Amino acid sequence: MGMVGGGRGAFIGAVHRMAAALDGEIELVCGAFSSSPKKAKLSGKDLFLPADRCYGSYEEMIKKEKELPEGERMDFVSIVTPNHVHFGPAKMALQNGFHVVCDKPLSFNMKEAKELQRLVKKTGLLFALTHNYTGYPMVKQAKVMIKKGKIGKIRKVVVEYPQGWLSTRVEATDSKQAAWRTDPKKSGIAGAMGDIGTHAENLAEYMTGLQITKLCADINIMVEGRRLDDDGNVLLEFDNGAKGILFASQIAAGEENALRIRVYGEKAGLEWAQMEPNSLIVKWLDKPMEILRTGFGNLSPEAQNATRIPAGHPEGYLEAFANIYRNFAISLRAIINGKKPKAIYMDFPSVEDGVRGMRFIEKVIESGKSKQKWMKF
Amino acid sequence: MGMVGGGRGAFIGAVHRMAAALDGEIELVCGAFSSSPKKAKLSGKDLFLPADRCYGSYEEMIKKEKELPEGERMDFVSIVTPNHVHFGPAKMALQNGFHVVCDKPLSFNMKEAKELQRLVKKTGLLFALTHNYTGYPMVKQAKVMIKKGKIGKIRKVVVEYPQGWLSTRVEATDSKQAAWRTDPKKSGIAGAMGDIGTHAENLAEYMTGLQITKLCADINIMVEGRRLDDDGNVLLEFDNGAKGILFASQIAAGEENALRIRVYGEKAGLEWAQMEPNSLIVKWLDKPMEILRTGFGNLSPEAQNATRIPAGHPEGYLEAFANIYRNFAISLRAIINGKKPKAIYMDFPSVEDGVRGMRFIEKVIESGKSKQKWMKF
Amino acid sequence: MGMVGGGRGAFIGAVHRMAAALDGEIELVCGAFSSSPKKAKLSGKDLFLPADRCYGSYEEMIKKEKELPEGERMDFVSIVTPNHVHFGPAKMALQNGFHVVCDKPLSFNMKEAKELQRLVKKTGLLFALTHNYTGYPMVKQAKVMIKKGKIGKIRKVVVEYPQGWLSTRVEATDSKQAAWRTDPKKSGIAGAMGDIGTHAENLAEYMTGLQITKLCADINIMVEGRRLDDDGNVLLEFDNGAKGILFASQIAAGEENALRIRVYGEKAGLEWAQMEPNSLIVKWLDKPMEILRTGFGNLSPEAQNATRIPAGHPEGYLEAFANIYRNFAISLRAIINGKKPKAIYMDFPSVEDGVRGMRFIEKVIESGKSKQKWMKF
Amino acid sequence: MGMVGGGRGAFIGAVHRMAAALDGEIELVCGAFSSSPKKAKLSGKDLFLPADRCYGSYEEMIKKEKELPEGERMDFVSIVTPNHVHFGPAKMALQNGFHVVCDKPLSFNMKEAKELQRLVKKTGLLFALTHNYTGYPMVKQAKVMIKKGKIGKIRKVVVEYPQGWLSTRVEATDSKQAAWRTDPKKSGIAGAMGDIGTHAENLAEYMTGLQITKLCADINIMVEGRRLDDDGNVLLEFDNGAKGILFASQIAAGEENALRIRVYGEKAGLEWAQMEPNSLIVKWLDKPMEILRTGFGNLSPEAQNATRIPAGHPEGYLEAFANIYRNFAISLRAIINGKKPKAIYMDFPSVEDGVRGMRFIEKVIESGKSKQKWMKF
Repeated sequence: MGMVGGGRGAFIGAVHRMAAALDGEIELVCGAFSSSPKKAKLSGKDLFLPADRCYGSYEEMIKKEKELPEGERMDFVSIVTPNHVHFGPAKMALQNGFHVVCDKPLSFNMKEAKELQRLVKKTGLLFALTHNYTGYPMVKQAKVMIKKGKIGKIRKVVVEYPQGWLSTRVEATDSKQAAWRTDPKKSGIAGAMGDIGTHAENLAEYMTGLQITKLCADINIMVEGRRLDDDGNVLLEFDNGAKGILFASQIAAGEENALRIRVYGEKAGLEWAQMEPNSLIVKWLDKPMEILRTGFGNLSPEAQNATRIPAGHPEGYLEAFANIYRNFAISLRAIINGKKPKAIYMDFPSVEDGVRGMRFIEKVIESGKSKQKWMKF
Repeated sequence: MGMVGGGRGAFIGAVHRMAAALDGEIELVCGAFSSSPKKAKLSGKDLFLPADRCYGSYEEMIKKEKELPEGERMDFVSIVTPNHVHFGPAKMALQNGFHVVCDKPLSFNMKEAKELQRLVKKTGLLFALTHNYTGYPMVKQAKVMIKKGKIGKIRKVVVEYPQGWLSTRVEATDSKQAAWRTDPKKSGIAGAMGDIGTHAENLAEYMTGLQITKLCADINIMVEGRRLDDDGNVLLEFDNGAKGILFASQIAAGEENALRIRVYGEKAGLEWAQMEPNSLIVKWLDKPMEILRTGFGNLSPEAQNATRIPAGHPEGYLEAFANIYRNFAISLRAIINGKKPKAIYMDFPSVEDGVRGMRFIEKVIESGKSKQKWMKF
Repeated sequence: MGMVGGGRGAFIGAVHRMAAALDGEIELVCGAFSSSPKKAKLSGKDLFLPADRCYGSYEEMIKKEKELPEGERMDFVSIVTPNHVHFGPAKMALQNGFHVVCDKPLSFNMKEAKELQRLVKKTGLLFALTHNYTGYPMVKQAKVMIKKGKIGKIRKVVVEYPQGWLSTRVEATDSKQAAWRTDPKKSGIAGAMGDIGTHAENLAEYMTGLQITKLCADINIMVEGRRLDDDGNVLLEFDNGAKGILFASQIAAGEENALRIRVYGEKAGLEWAQMEPNSLIVKWLDKPMEILRTGFGNLSPEAQNATRIPAGHPEGYLEAFANIYRNFAISLRAIINGKKPKAIYMDFPSVEDGVRGMRFIEKVIESGKSKQKWMKF
Repeated sequence: MGMVGGGRGAFIGAVHRMAAALDGEIELVCGAFSSSPKKAKLSGKDLFLPADRCYGSYEEMIKKEKELPEGERMDFVSIVTPNHVHFGPAKMALQNGFHVVCDKPLSFNMKEAKELQRLVKKTGLLFALTHNYTGYPMVKQAKVMIKKGKIGKIRKVVVEYPQGWLSTRVEATDSKQAAWRTDPKKSGIAGAMGDIGTHAENLAEYMTGLQITKLCADINIMVEGRRLDDDGNVLLEFDNGAKGILFASQIAAGEENALRIRVYGEKAGLEWAQMEPNSLIVKWLDKPMEILRTGFGNLSPEAQNATRIPAGHPEGYLEAFANIYRNFAISLRAIINGKKPKAIYMDFPSVEDGVRGMRFIEKVIESGKSKQKWMKF
């Protein structure tokens, strides 16, 4: 694995590295960790990388690595930069035969997203988008239960993602994380809706197997002086006629990272919360409520494949994130060995999910500005 | 107290009686428990009432009681009938000098609501509407904290009321409760939105001290053959610029009575859930989360006045309901004794709250049918 | 009902009155509310009782009420005084043909307990001891499940009752509640163990249907200057060979009233906590954990009989307390009407439970002082 | 790092590898993964190790690695075998100059423990015992708060570790994990008390800074045919006079891995549960209960050092385990570089903790067999 971004002071780069390292399936062999060559070298040294594999730019990295003999060069690129620097390295990696793992949202705008989708299709290379919340075992369990019809036809979906860390104008302090996320030149047309709203959208579609077909959005900037949305409430309609609510906020004071989803079918309701990720609550219409738990033998193969340790030994955010990497790595190894990856391992968010996320951003912002009630997705 | 409705087989009538009895402040002295004279008599007997105080109709009750000497006749009327039988007894009671406690929503339609509002104003009689959830101590605690500015200016309100008991067409069975609630002739223009949506609306306005000024509603009938809404998702705007979401559903399979509210201000978020009513969660921006608990000495006088027993001895739905009755009774006794009731006891939902609830019903149903995004409240 | 104790400033007297009033089955008709005649009269006035039914002593009350015609005089005596004033009124009531409801523990010492047991047996009068926690619906549900063998043979019981309110020497302030509970002349030989330890013992035996046969206790006074135990840890053995732990503490700083029990059988574990009383957690060995909830139709008749309102409308401490009174009242009415009370209504703690509680106090204090490991119960 | 044990089919070996890999500080370079040479080679291959670093025995590994040039050979040995194979490799590693990480309990018996303690002292090599639960950030936060006197003098400690997985005679099936844990030749004199009781003992002493001075144990075998204890209840006394309860059980049907501790001081109570590890509940005597959360900036440096990601991104068992390895690795690097490791990194369980754990096993089993009440620790 070669990494683009994630130098000293970055947040998500370290997460990607821990996630990739956890299972011993992936080795970090090189990186273009920063646009500052000096910082790039220092970051590489922190990571015990040889100096000659710490590149000054992603262009250099891709070019030089390509020249290395097979088996020695990196197998894939991991892109962990802010949104405006997803497209460049992803495109170049694909064009040079490298598989790609890319942080979300897919790109800066829809045009880039479409181009990446085209390139993935054309090259046939593996592409994973780190909508990491789909990596949780109980999310997969819920998906399987819904697919098998356990809760009946879905009628209502409530997905929410409140955070509170942007309740004040943090971007005016020295918070690197806040700065780029609230900067239209780096983040794109959306703030909270792009950063976390897309996670909510992706989770809802992944878990239910449904697609949003219409939405009606109220998009807000609550902190004075902020340039991008920090709050939004959205009515949803899905392709089977189900209705829903999605809300995402970064001014929900005191909330940590409270992604939560409730799905109501004709026979039961499901509830899952990212902050207590090892439980899946199943509320039946006519029998007692059940709590399914990560690590139990009675779960689906998909959930068990996403679990490392026995029930009661809590697995968290990094393990879920690592599930994306592990599935990607196992699938990649199959491909390298000339085999077809198994479906259970090909279970990671794709470039198509990324395009849907970009459309969500486009439509939710458009709807927020519109006086029209419903907007087609 | 004389009761209208609440005969054998009724639900809310028994609740009102337990709530009224709990504190020993109120005695049930007569009733018109049923439109069937025989059932009315039997119900009265169940309740150990003398036969001559069990009337065949509310008209008879009000007329006969009025003829009794003061001190012997009922002091007020409690109306616990379905929505279409609120107006008649309330109007007649007011016109004959009886104070009134009335179940929610206030009336069958807005016209009736306005007329009751006019009569209350004209007669100066006490009128309480049993939006019972405002009777919980921690709801009052939240209200006081917000009023005092503890959480700063409010930015976002999320209020939800999911139930699952109408997930199937229960009204086609012999459920008396489901039957009238889904019957436009008895319930009015709204189903879930009237039955529980108004509770959510009332709770949000009571707790925050804000008023809804605009809304955008998606109102649904999810169970085939049903005649009134059983689900609705609503975007809100409040008079201080805060935004919000209200949803109410009776097809949220597996949910019991999960009224919950979250209020986010500039400094903190508050969370309260009816099913765990003795905790108020306060999530501060820059200090640890606190859990305030019913019965602790550090709560506001309003919360303490609504509490009967020490912390850790859970108080529930009936106690909150009883708080409406107790405040009403204490205020009424003051009035009877020629005194001005204290503000802390005048803390119960009024006919004005009832009119707002009726407007909510009107507007939310109108918005649900409209292609216009925002509707003025 | 005539009440002994419970005048102004008392705690448990008001609880008994609310519990007795809730269901409209019982009327408070007289009382000897205080040993101070003046306070007794004032307390009676607070409760809207006629002056001639507010007596200056329990002796006077029992004597005068007996002289009243049947139908007019009280049917039973409710004793809500501190421990040292249980025996006198209970004995006199029984000797004069009045049924009795008595607060726990049964008496000041074992000798009194035995005498009351003898009198109840001799007179055939109804006697209820208010171990109120057995009144909760989910406690009854657990009892029924265990009796039916749902969780298999019981192997382990963990029952705990931590409170924190005596963490400082509150009895040195003006706390009436703390004063008598820590006074050997009023409380008896035990402090915390008598006040709440007996609740834990009673709950464990009631729920499991087992009896403690041996115990090994560590009994402590943690607050300097206190005269009775405020903390204790006890190892238990039950008559079927199961082992267990009981602990009760009033110096568990910050705890409210956290009575909790876990029962582990061969097939499943049950967990119930008084502070979240409407849930019963069932942890199965080989299927998902279930949460049973008060108010659901799938519960046992015993649990349903103890429930007043639908699921999701929380019932609490007063409702559970009221279940003791309601069952007592319904059974008493049957007896008055010359019928045999139904088993489902005879479900309230008896004088025998009271004698077991007194033996628990005796043995646990004896064991606390002993160097011998196990003490026979 | 060279690993002893942890071949195919093992549980804790994989945990150690993930924990060691997570932070990119440690590289697995060799192993003696199994006593079967064939299995050892295959396990090494699974882990992408070169064949010549996959040894057939720990003796071979230590000998051969020692012959490798510095910088190439392993820096330390990680021992993840069953209890009876801790002493051999640990002793040989220490005698040959290798630092050691060893799974708990320290050894098969006290004699071995003392000998290892002597060797560590003599050689001055680093030795970490993986009492992994002390690696959780909120455990460290509690330790710091207690040390600073925030909760006052400790009066009571309740530590419990219920599991249910040995509720049936699993060792009679093909469960490798159950087999050795219930085999006195591999596990030692204790079953549950050694496997998980020592974790509870270690957690209590680590968090409180107190030492157990006396205990009174009831030790049981609940499953017929089992050879070692599967359940135990223990009364405790600590060196400051505090009292406590420790219980550990593997027949608590339906429990997962429910290690939980409550510490009550004069001013507040603390509560932490391994299954919800990112919260620390602080129950104050006279202010609202607080929930401290992993990832918040207001925590102690010790807690922050043990945290990788922001609040609301749950960290779990593997992260806590990795904290032991990371602290060990950072301290080791300091030593290798000739520096004194910082105190904050030397925060991992030591050989002394291991000796205390072995004494706990010895005493708790002895007490279980004794008729004497208290046994000195």
